[in-house]
Amino acid sequence: MTNSAGYRSRTNPRDFQQGLADHNSNQGSRCASIDLSMPTGKLHIVPLGGLGEFGMNCMAIRWGDDIIVVDAGLMFPEAELLGVDIVVPDISYLLENRKHVRGIVLTHGHEDHIGALPWILSELNVPVWATEFTLAYVEDKLDEHQLLDDADLREIRPGERFKVGPFTVHPLQVTHSLVDCVALAIHTPLGVVLHTGDFKVDPTPTDNRLFDLHGFAEYGKEGVLALLQDSTNVERKGYTPSERAVRRKFEEVFARTKRRLFISCFSSSIHRIKLTVDMAREHGRKICFIGRSMENSSEIAEDLGYVEIPDGMMIHPGEMKNFAPERVCVLISGTQGEPMSALSRAAVDNHKHAKIEKGDTVVLSSRIIPGNEKAIFRMVDHLFRREAFVIYDDGSYPPIHVSGHASQEELKLIINLVRPKYFVPIHGEFRQLRLHADLAASMHGSVGSVMLIESGDILEIDERGARKAGRINVGRVCIDSGSRTDVVEDLVIKDRRHLSEDGFVMPIIAIDKHTGRVETSPEIVTRGFNPGDNGVIDRIKQIVVETLDSSSAEEKADYGVIKEKIRTDLKRYISRQTQRRPLIMPVILEV
Amino acid sequence: MTNSAGYRSRTNPRDFQQGLADHNSNQGSRCASIDLSMPTGKLHIVPLGGLGEFGMNCMAIRWGDDIIVVDAGLMFPEAELLGVDIVVPDISYLLENRKHVRGIVLTHGHEDHIGALPWILSELNVPVWATEFTLAYVEDKLDEHQLLDDADLREIRPGERFKVGPFTVHPLQVTHSLVDCVALAIHTPLGVVLHTGDFKVDPTPTDNRLFDLHGFAEYGKEGVLALLQDSTNVERKGYTPSERAVRRKFEEVFARTKRRLFISCFSSSIHRIKLTVDMAREHGRKICFIGRSMENSSEIAEDLGYVEIPDGMMIHPGEMKNFAPERVCVLISGTQGEPMSALSRAAVDNHKHAKIEKGDTVVLSSRIIPGNEKAIFRMVDHLFRREAFVIYDDGSYPPIHVSGHASQEELKLIINLVRPKYFVPIHGEFRQLRLHADLAASMHGSVGSVMLIESGDILEIDERGARKAGRINVGRVCIDSGSRTDVVEDLVIKDRRHLSEDGFVMPIIAIDKHTGRVETSPEIVTRGFNPGDNGVIDRIKQIVVETLDSSSAEEKADYGVIKEKIRTDLKRYISRQTQRRPLIMPVILEV
Repeated sequence: MTNSAGYRSRTNPRDFQQGLADHNSNQGSRCASIDLSMPTGKLHIVPLGGLGEFGMNCMAIRWGDDIIVVDAGLMFPEAELLGVDIVVPDISYLLENRKHVRGIVLTHGHEDHIGALPWILSELNVPVWATEFTLAYVEDKLDEHQLLDDADLREIRPGERFKVGPFTVHPLQVTHSLVDCVALAIHTPLGVVLHTGDFKVDPTPTDNRLFDLHGFAEYGKEGVLALLQDSTNVERKGYTPSERAVRRKFEEVFARTKRRLFISCFSSSIHRIKLTVDMAREHGRKICFIGRSMENSSEIAEDLGYVEIPDGMMIHPGEMKNFAPERVCVLISGTQGEPMSALSRAAVDNHKHAKIEKGDTVVLSSRIIPGNEKAIFRMVDHLFRREAFVIYDDGSYPPIHVSGHASQEELKLIINLVRPKYFVPIHGEFRQLRLHADLAASMHGSVGSVMLIESGDILEIDERGARKAGRINVGRVCIDSGSRTDVVEDLVIKDRRHLSEDGFVMPIIAIDKHTGRVETSPEIVTRGFNPGDNGVIDRIKQIVVETLDSSSAEEKADYGVIKEKIRTDLKRYISRQTQRRPLIMPVILEV
Repeated sequence: MTNSAGYRSRTNPRDFQQGLADHNSNQGSRCASIDLSMPTGKLHIVPLGGLGEFGMNCMAIRWGDDIIVVDAGLMFPEAELLGVDIVVPDISYLLENRKHVRGIVLTHGHEDHIGALPWILSELNVPVWATEFTLAYVEDKLDEHQLLDDADLREIRPGERFKVGPFTVHPLQVTHSLVDCVALAIHTPLGVVLHTGDFKVDPTPTDNRLFDLHGFAEYGKEGVLALLQDSTNVERKGYTPSERAVRRKFEEVFARTKRRLFISCFSSSIHRIKLTVDMAREHGRKICFIGRSMENSSEIAEDLGYVEIPDGMMIHPGEMKNFAPERVCVLISGTQGEPMSALSRAAVDNHKHAKIEKGDTVVLSSRIIPGNEKAIFRMVDHLFRREAFVIYDDGSYPPIHVSGHASQEELKLIINLVRPKYFVPIHGEFRQLRLHADLAASMHGSVGSVMLIESGDILEIDERGARKAGRINVGRVCIDSGSRTDVVEDLVIKDRRHLSEDGFVMPIIAIDKHTGRVETSPEIVTRGFNPGDNGVIDRIKQIVVETLDSSSAEEKADYGVIKEKIRTDLKRYISRQTQRRPLIMPVILEV
């Protein structure tokens, strides 16, 4: 990028998606200062996930024969994906280009940015770059999948550039709900691509590691080819409050709690864990961690110096009973009402150590993830029944939780600082990308063109402009159980959904393989099906017999035909009789 | 109720649930004016649903051998209740006392207050009292279930008292998101029980039918035995905005929309339908109703004079194409992203008449019911993809939707007006009842004692005080399909849940009934189960054979034993091999 400001002034930013047309038609006046020695290759920005969907953030950036991948996230399945544990991106694009992939760079340690790593590395073992804290999470995860020994993990530090193939990557420190997060300034032969990762602009982070505004400003001065910016909170006006805002609420809670204090937050909320530990110390309470994810995460945070726990302050759950209630503070897993979490079990008095008693206070310092409301409020109701005082996010101020993503004013601030030639909204459902595109397009002075793309689109940039240049195969791969390899086929999920709605009806018919005769009366097995009254099952038997009787010997010899006839006849009867559509699965047994 | 204020002054309202103890110990001083001629019977207030759960509102009030029922609501099932369409209260208490039930009085026409009527009336055909508008909904519903001809429906009017057995019921007009809603002042021999129904205190309802503050005040002056008050919005501070607040947002939307305007609201939001029709008229747009529930509801509203549509203003969906886009306003069903609703179909361009085009505006004038976020935002994303401008509740002011339930200040206002001896929070999950109890208990001057009860508790009141006096059987009855009679057993739902998670594995074994010999190799049928690789199914077959081989002739003769052995052996293998727990259902076929 040798030109810096000339290309911005006269664009009509409303016509995003028309980036190329604008760019070409205005090129004479807008790009007067363009350097004719600019390389003639093409840069491809190819989101594999996260653009037009929530989670599963993964993006390939390609120059010629070199690909760098930013993030490798998972998505938690929607309720309809029955029995699916996690969803990861389809990486066929990377596999087809496996010899060109130079490595994966991670922006931070949240699951929607690192959760697909075991899946991807087991298919494509390339180096992974990440900051110290992010690597600690990654190591844990890879260890769990027996992939750690073979992994090539490389630690990076904010501010220190490194090379990945032809790319120089410059990690810039950003603030977020997690610690040690970076944006990535990726130097390509065509200019700098600045990928924000997830961020907010928190002027007072609990770890005092500040957002690198100067780094962003410097790039803005030098000229940035493309800004790829987090869209998560684009629907929110104003500024996201600092993590510091939660401290005021915590002060209130600690001051008035007379008995045990249970605080639940996401286990990755290191800021919140630090705050809790600091305040417990100030108020003379011991600290106790309950729940596997909370224990792991706080251990990593302590090892890396994010949380300081003085000697003798931490107690084991079993020791709680030895301390007066007003001397104990418990950090406990389970903000989302997950049925097996420590807090859910404590709420129904089913946890060995976490006993919640009358007058105790329970704090849910987290947001309600959509879809979890019922589970969370069921848990809250149980806590109220135990006569605990429960504090959850009810919209009051000071807040008990703050978001980790930038609101509109912060998004505009970064756009103002960076002044990119191309703006690409990332990390969001379609409406969020669209609203973010609208927001950027309204900033005439700061943005050249806005490019609205979704997962699978190839955004091609060269010296002549930017355009959508085709699509690659992308999609969601459903993974069963904890294993990284158990892909669940669509058909299996479809069957599960069908079974879950109406159950199944299975007529089993034994046919003598020598004579072709039907042996004994058919057996009818049903599950999850509500026949209404007993007559229905008898009638089903009868229909099977009638269907068999009315079939020719030829038909009876072709099990496919006979099964289909039975299925059709039963479907008609059952749907008329019960208004339900169970899976009907005739089985023929040759005996 | 002859005493009026004396009993209030010295209670310690913090000790709710201790109502009796307080009442007795303080009786000398507090109830100096008590009338000794007060009847010596016992009044029972018995919630059958809606206290400690959301929906399914239904309450029995009993004096001696006479029972009056207030409301007969349903609950929409949680996602875990797979394949269940609606949930209704267990009414065994009413059936056991069937000869004492004098009738059902309805407060308003929402499903959580009338939706269980078909179910209840088909078991217990008693008279039903309700206002004109509520009855119109009830008639529709009973007609659908072929129960209308046998029903004894009686129209009531706000302000006009009527008798039900020994009770005189005085309906008081209240404001809510629906029209023609009433609170009920039920005169019992022991005093007045005031049941608020659902309400807010809207000073400017669109139909100008005002909240009967004077009626409430009058009762407060005379003395009220018990106030049973709606807890739905107790977590909200301040006042709920008037329906009128939405008008400002609608004005903005109508003014700036240049093409077709689609407005979706709950079909029972008569205020919102009226507002839309009025504004469409003012802006020279034709009105068109799309979606069955929207058509029904607007027809009822028009018939009863709540909505006035001038001749020639309403067009049929098929006529839309004859009018310029800026001359059309469409009221369309489907605010919650229900997959088969008109709006969901329009969003994916799959509706015959509702075509959404670039530049159209779509308004979702409703709240997001918890659990529906994903479906709603999926629909919104599709609308954005069609390049429509979508307006949904994003917390901005003026609001695009307002609640129909009273917030804290309104709740306090009613308590101030009514000054009840006993306060009972109704309509809410447990935490809401509890917070409402706390709120009332803090109002020393206005409330005697607070009684926190849940569905199934018997609240007994007599001249000596009030107390929980045992429990009745209550619970949720799950109904499959549209029918009123298809009760789904717990086991069926449990099976569906199990099937939906992991599917099933069914080994089928044919045994010769004469020799006890196993004929041919076992057949393995699976659905919704992900075996990982093919070897697993072969190994399952082998295990079944091994289990059979290792069993004695005696065991083989007992199919129960042999099935259990197979189940155990397979379960162990499958769970170790795949980490899943499919339903394992061995079937033995005698041939």
